[in-house]
Amino acid sequence: MPPLNANNINPAWKDVQYAVRGPIAIKAEEYRDRLRKGDKNLPFDRVVNSNIGNPQQKGLDQKPITFTRQVAALLEYPELMEKGKDIFPADAVARAKELYDEIGSIGAYSHSQGVPYIRTNVAKFIEERDGYPADPSQIFLTAGASAGVSLLISMLISSPKAGILIPIPQYPLYTATLAQQGGIPIPYYLDESKGWSTSPESVSAAVAKALKDGIEPKALVIINPGNPTGSILDVPTMKALLKICEEHSLMLLADEVYQANTHDPANYPWTSFKKILRDTQSPVPLVSFHSISKGVSGECGRRGGYFELVNVPEEITALIYKMVSVGLCPPLSGQIGVDSLVRPPKQGDESYALWKQETDTIHAALAKRSLTMAERLNNLPGMSCAPAVGALYLFPALHLTKNAIKAAEDAGQTPDNFYANALLDETGICAVSGTGFGQKTGEAHFRLTCLCDGVEEYVGNLEKFHRGFMEKYKD
Amino acid sequence: MPPLNANNINPAWKDVQYAVRGPIAIKAEEYRDRLRKGDKNLPFDRVVNSNIGNPQQKGLDQKPITFTRQVAALLEYPELMEKGKDIFPADAVARAKELYDEIGSIGAYSHSQGVPYIRTNVAKFIEERDGYPADPSQIFLTAGASAGVSLLISMLISSPKAGILIPIPQYPLYTATLAQQGGIPIPYYLDESKGWSTSPESVSAAVAKALKDGIEPKALVIINPGNPTGSILDVPTMKALLKICEEHSLMLLADEVYQANTHDPANYPWTSFKKILRDTQSPVPLVSFHSISKGVSGECGRRGGYFELVNVPEEITALIYKMVSVGLCPPLSGQIGVDSLVRPPKQGDESYALWKQETDTIHAALAKRSLTMAERLNNLPGMSCAPAVGALYLFPALHLTKNAIKAAEDAGQTPDNFYANALLDETGICAVSGTGFGQKTGEAHFRLTCLCDGVEEYVGNLEKFHRGFMEKYKD
Repeated sequence: MPPLNANNINPAWKDVQYAVRGPIAIKAEEYRDRLRKGDKNLPFDRVVNSNIGNPQQKGLDQKPITFTRQVAALLEYPELMEKGKDIFPADAVARAKELYDEIGSIGAYSHSQGVPYIRTNVAKFIEERDGYPADPSQIFLTAGASAGVSLLISMLISSPKAGILIPIPQYPLYTATLAQQGGIPIPYYLDESKGWSTSPESVSAAVAKALKDGIEPKALVIINPGNPTGSILDVPTMKALLKICEEHSLMLLADEVYQANTHDPANYPWTSFKKILRDTQSPVPLVSFHSISKGVSGECGRRGGYFELVNVPEEITALIYKMVSVGLCPPLSGQIGVDSLVRPPKQGDESYALWKQETDTIHAALAKRSLTMAERLNNLPGMSCAPAVGALYLFPALHLTKNAIKAAEDAGQTPDNFYANALLDETGICAVSGTGFGQKTGEAHFRLTCLCDGVEEYVGNLEKFHRGFMEKYKD
Repeated sequence: MPPLNANNINPAWKDVQYAVRGPIAIKAEEYRDRLRKGDKNLPFDRVVNSNIGNPQQKGLDQKPITFTRQVAALLEYPELMEKGKDIFPADAVARAKELYDEIGSIGAYSHSQGVPYIRTNVAKFIEERDGYPADPSQIFLTAGASAGVSLLISMLISSPKAGILIPIPQYPLYTATLAQQGGIPIPYYLDESKGWSTSPESVSAAVAKALKDGIEPKALVIINPGNPTGSILDVPTMKALLKICEEHSLMLLADEVYQANTHDPANYPWTSFKKILRDTQSPVPLVSFHSISKGVSGECGRRGGYFELVNVPEEITALIYKMVSVGLCPPLSGQIGVDSLVRPPKQGDESYALWKQETDTIHAALAKRSLTMAERLNNLPGMSCAPAVGALYLFPALHLTKNAIKAAEDAGQTPDNFYANALLDETGICAVSGTGFGQKTGEAHFRLTCLCDGVEEYVGNLEKFHRGFMEKYKD
């Protein structure tokens, strides 16, 4: 037999693409390494990671929520419950004791589905949010939302003809996982001219086309609030989407990890699919994903999240349990993070004032940055940017000149990759091109996070680069 | 289309079996629930989870290593580095500061392969262990060893004819992952009469048979120290196994997670495959897995581990990186756990004495329990138990009567499952039957962990049950 090489391994691995940690992110890491080693030959002195929603990373340094971290520290080293009485607020100590009584050591494997008590707390959170009951036995704690999404997609791909409806643009986890599982992505296009809204008609059309092509649609993925688009669905659209799922026996995979990231909730409120499903007594099987990585929590490194199953047959729940049990359990660090997410300090608690101040500050900063950045980008020649009312990103469109497109072609790159590479090479700003998320043929976009502090300097550098780029390649 | 049911999902899911968290473990959970709710109708007052190596679980309560937890608490809540000066030893604070400078917040995603600095420390640990260089770029931190094993098996299954050599008995992660990935398990049998030793001849014979059957063997799995067997390979056997891998272009998957669990190192030392590979200048591609869940660390809930690639082509390493990047990063809690595992306090450090005492105590207890339990089980009628020189388990053989086998048949169960169910129903001891690990046709075994405190009571209950069972079903 030939020795191990890229041609005699799982062929699906070659097809997987994950742009947010792909070539441009790897190049950014190399630049960061060079800067660390004192390289003075780069035209910038820091790398700005705008490629990924990672609020607490070095250089962005969004402060973690104090209460969350206090509870975690107490559970890591329970002697602190006594020894640290003068350091920790009483409610954090009480919470840690309560969790310790339930869980014991966070160094032990838990129930594979997640600590039962934490699942009960998640169920209460969902009940308060939606006004409908939630069942802890239908909740699975996960190592971040990604782990749950991969699991569900793996489950749904029943044959090489099975497909899943995904929005374009999408978060590339979906295409990456489908490539890995040998499933077919069935694209439906979001409407950039209407703030990246979702049109039920375009979803129906995508289903019809798939069926005509001999593809079996298994599920509809909705990312709400949208990634990379920042749009938020209105209730009539959600109802229409549920109807489509019902009509075609589709499972609804609702990626709701940005549910707490709404920038203008009075005008653009977010509603869960669970609520609308119950409001309309829909029989559609729903999986709703949530995470501690986003929102104002930003605890990406803990790897915590959950999904809730609704209208899912018991035999399927049992199979999901069996599959997650092979991985033993989600990280306890993430599980206790989920508990803090769903049970923040309440009015009257010692930690409430600080928690309120910390979370208000982050909400306000994200909303302001999202607005400011979109405004400034819209003022640039050759760029337009739909404002984002939710999530953590902007997805501006580039209207490039023929000369720029020609230069990209000569460099063997797509126009948006050519732009993103030039942006990184000249400014140290790492942004992922639209190719990684999907866009209509001929279009060029890029995704920027709204997480970076020092917007003045960062957007200033981007503007300067962009004007220079447009000038350099003017027709 | 028909609505979602178990017959229109990924067909591989049905084939997956994972006994250590399977029906018997689920039944044990139900019993525990009943006891918690005050049920007095059970013939026992606690459930003993002997089904899984989970040292810190409630009821076993193996104490975590203090230094590991102090560093973790300081990183969870960095204000403790100042505020907790009187609580924490100086070396724990210094270590936490050093890690904080490198990592920043443990709430941020890290490099997908793991924090570079921690990988450097892992490489030093391997170098000191083996006397050969290790390269941080070839080390991947993981969410426990299981995540790494799944990833590598997924990579190797290049077609439905691809197979992987696994020992019988084995840890069922291997068969579960193969079932999930559509790969073929190629069994080779360990020799119970020689303390479950591995015979290179039986591996060669398994390869030959597979080739004859049109199966393409891709890799050889070795679990050393063995799970569930507790045996440790000698160097001549390791050299012979490397030769077989070389001859047949097999990748060697070395599951070395129990490398620190050796009960009699003077007579039964453990040696890494990396060292033997370098000693013999073997070109075999090797993946060695390690974990923080076992050893004396027992930090299962953190989900931490690593694997090292040796002799693996660069294009393969790049593909592995791409695939792990889709999952973003391993939990930081597990990553810092790996750092503590590979950099424990050293002689002269403030924390050394306590660390030495804690780890010595655990080592001694495991060695003593393993020996005592095997002795006592060997004194029972109808049972024989090869002593374990490593890992955390015993895998005794049951020599059941015809009447017992008939009773099992009547109950629609395999004899070993019938025995394990009766053991649980009568004593609350949850042990997994040999069917879950694999055994020769007609044999019956079960796996017990050596983790339970109060061996006197626990083994006493087991003995009483066993004698009663043998009496009840005597021929």
